[in-house]
Amino acid sequence: MKLYSNPDRSDWSEILKRPTQTVGDIEATVNEVFNAVAKNGDQAIADYTSKFDGVCLENPIVSAQEIEAAKTEVSESLKNAIALAKRNIEAFHSAQKTDKVTVDTMPGVTCWQEKRPIQKVGLYIPGGTAPLFSTVLMLAVPAQIARCKEIVLCSPPNKEGHIAPEILYAANLCGVTKIIKVGGIQAIAGLTFGTKSIPQVYKIFGPGNQFVTVAKQIATKYGVAIDMPAGPSELLVMADTTANVAFVASDLLSQAEHGSDSQVILVTTCQEFAKAVSEEVQEQLAVLPRKEMAEQAIANSKTIVVDANTTAIDLINAYGPEHFIVATADNDFFVNEISNAGSVFIGDYTPESAGDYASGTNHTLPTNGFSKAYSGVNLDSFQKSMTFQNISKEGIQNIGKTIELMAEAEGLQAHKNAVTLRLKELEK
Amino acid sequence: MKLYSNPDRSDWSEILKRPTQTVGDIEATVNEVFNAVAKNGDQAIADYTSKFDGVCLENPIVSAQEIEAAKTEVSESLKNAIALAKRNIEAFHSAQKTDKVTVDTMPGVTCWQEKRPIQKVGLYIPGGTAPLFSTVLMLAVPAQIARCKEIVLCSPPNKEGHIAPEILYAANLCGVTKIIKVGGIQAIAGLTFGTKSIPQVYKIFGPGNQFVTVAKQIATKYGVAIDMPAGPSELLVMADTTANVAFVASDLLSQAEHGSDSQVILVTTCQEFAKAVSEEVQEQLAVLPRKEMAEQAIANSKTIVVDANTTAIDLINAYGPEHFIVATADNDFFVNEISNAGSVFIGDYTPESAGDYASGTNHTLPTNGFSKAYSGVNLDSFQKSMTFQNISKEGIQNIGKTIELMAEAEGLQAHKNAVTLRLKELEK
Repeated sequence: MKLYSNPDRSDWSEILKRPTQTVGDIEATVNEVFNAVAKNGDQAIADYTSKFDGVCLENPIVSAQEIEAAKTEVSESLKNAIALAKRNIEAFHSAQKTDKVTVDTMPGVTCWQEKRPIQKVGLYIPGGTAPLFSTVLMLAVPAQIARCKEIVLCSPPNKEGHIAPEILYAANLCGVTKIIKVGGIQAIAGLTFGTKSIPQVYKIFGPGNQFVTVAKQIATKYGVAIDMPAGPSELLVMADTTANVAFVASDLLSQAEHGSDSQVILVTTCQEFAKAVSEEVQEQLAVLPRKEMAEQAIANSKTIVVDANTTAIDLINAYGPEHFIVATADNDFFVNEISNAGSVFIGDYTPESAGDYASGTNHTLPTNGFSKAYSGVNLDSFQKSMTFQNISKEGIQNIGKTIELMAEAEGLQAHKNAVTLRLKELEK
Repeated sequence: MKLYSNPDRSDWSEILKRPTQTVGDIEATVNEVFNAVAKNGDQAIADYTSKFDGVCLENPIVSAQEIEAAKTEVSESLKNAIALAKRNIEAFHSAQKTDKVTVDTMPGVTCWQEKRPIQKVGLYIPGGTAPLFSTVLMLAVPAQIARCKEIVLCSPPNKEGHIAPEILYAANLCGVTKIIKVGGIQAIAGLTFGTKSIPQVYKIFGPGNQFVTVAKQIATKYGVAIDMPAGPSELLVMADTTANVAFVASDLLSQAEHGSDSQVILVTTCQEFAKAVSEEVQEQLAVLPRKEMAEQAIANSKTIVVDANTTAIDLINAYGPEHFIVATADNDFFVNEISNAGSVFIGDYTPESAGDYASGTNHTLPTNGFSKAYSGVNLDSFQKSMTFQNISKEGIQNIGKTIELMAEAEGLQAHKNAVTLRLKELEK
């Protein structure tokens, strides 16, 4: 871990800089796939699945039989774990429901705000060596609570043409309405334009590699919303001498194992503590199965020693970490003062893993400093707020003059006229 | 108005198609300005202001003296109208505040969600012939309620180097912290990168012409959030024979006067009513000062006659209008069944103008069918929701096994290890 001791504030932005991703080359590929899928629909999808995933599928839609089979392939202990995580995620996201907000802003002028579900959503679950069924829970559970009508899940098939049983099991458990064996750019293109097999959706959620990330950005050009722009996962740990060295090291490593581009930062007020963590990281690292990946991320990681908690919080807010663990003698200070973070983990016994899997909070969070402006995925991500207003005859008489004056001052005579006509009608 | 009588459902998407905007040419210009501002800061800003706005400014920052002067230039009657509108907007947006959502998902596992302000926001207010001070209210009032720390407003100067007094007056009234005389692409670039004069912000709000719209899209590539993608303004009126022909015509025209690209649609269950509205539109149109603009929009507008309210609501939801006026014998039906609309205006005495100016709801709304996935601007637009969790020793013992099992099933050993270490410590 690279150590910075009391760096000057003017150097912060350089130290905290994330590696920039070049998307130029990828964009051309993404546009090509999008054009092909827009034009040739399912045929293009099948061609790309054959090309990129190395498998020819007769039918990309997961059948009821496949889902039944998946149920028998997942162990009882994992089923129980999934059930518990689902229950916690449900409890936390259900609690986020809000009532209609109604205000009579003036007598006869009733305004209200209501949240209504996004009717059609697409969830993308990456393939790869490990089945990310936890992300199925994180996306499908709130979609179901929000009452989205169509919840479409896309995930790439393996060489045998299958999706991992854990993913099918979790998707079926959480009310996904359609599961399709399609991945990468072609999945996002399918959800954007719709094909015979893939329904067109209004918003696309979920993680993915660089190709999927760029495809989601391109999808927004076609009027589809996305959960948030994505970058490599990040963890910042703020710890002082009261923290447990082994715990801190294990948390840093749990982030590092995500991949060599993972961002891992330790901020501390004590140089000795920083050294102890660094040594402990090397020890724990030695026995990890994903050692090589984690090693690269740790090599790029940073330890920043600062003089005081007040300096630390300024630095952390300047960075805006996706995950923020705080293990200090004054956690309340950090909880109160943190402005920019995706999710905050407080105290020695709150590892990031808890939020990644089972505590109930969502693990789809803003990376790349986006926590300065973006929320993590939550119930509202699957709804949109709409406003309503109902003005009575009395109401328009109370507010009409004001509207007329303002419309006139903005030079919008027809806006004024819509009120004037109504006021005149009432004078009759 | 073009009349469609009971069109087949298969033709809806063609009839409801919005004109596509070509942004290709504009993007090159936007990128050029962005690069120049990123490199040369205020000097580039000054050059573009000279080039595009035709004025050389010594200092683009609006002074306290200019704000004082503006106060004397706005009439007392307009000040009173602004005060009333502001009060209503405040009342409606303050009511949208939500409490911390706290759930103990298991004994010892406490999770909560809190909304915190976006620290730095930029508000863009277009220039042009009429001063859009109403948009200042719509953006600055919720920013202030959300407690955003820096609220920066940019608006282009006129040839004399001034911003309209109505805009300065409203901005000052609503707690804007800095007002800068800069418009167009260079304003958005300045807010994106920051210059000596223009603070870098985390999120940019506000309407604008095609250049501003594309500039906001490009800004997101540099990590800045935006309120929403924008397109030409839209109104769909659903009316039956119980509606007032003159009122409906005046509402259609109030939308049409926004510009020749405004989208105006009337849906009705009665062909005779459609004809009556069309005739009334022509009569009212004749005396409008912005007649030419409105005429073009009306020429492109559509009247769709359908057989029943149930057909109408399907069509309206397929379109997803920005503004939706409903004046029928069964307004409740439409209010209950509308899934996709930015803001809904109910009954004969609720013109769109009310929401545009003074009733309290926000007038920054999703166009171009984005109401299917996007909310209009509301209090949450100026906040992000963050999650927090605090797990006790008892808590990790309750939830630890589940996390271990799930992490292992996803092949993430270090995630598991972060829990295992803690559980072992507690067994000591």
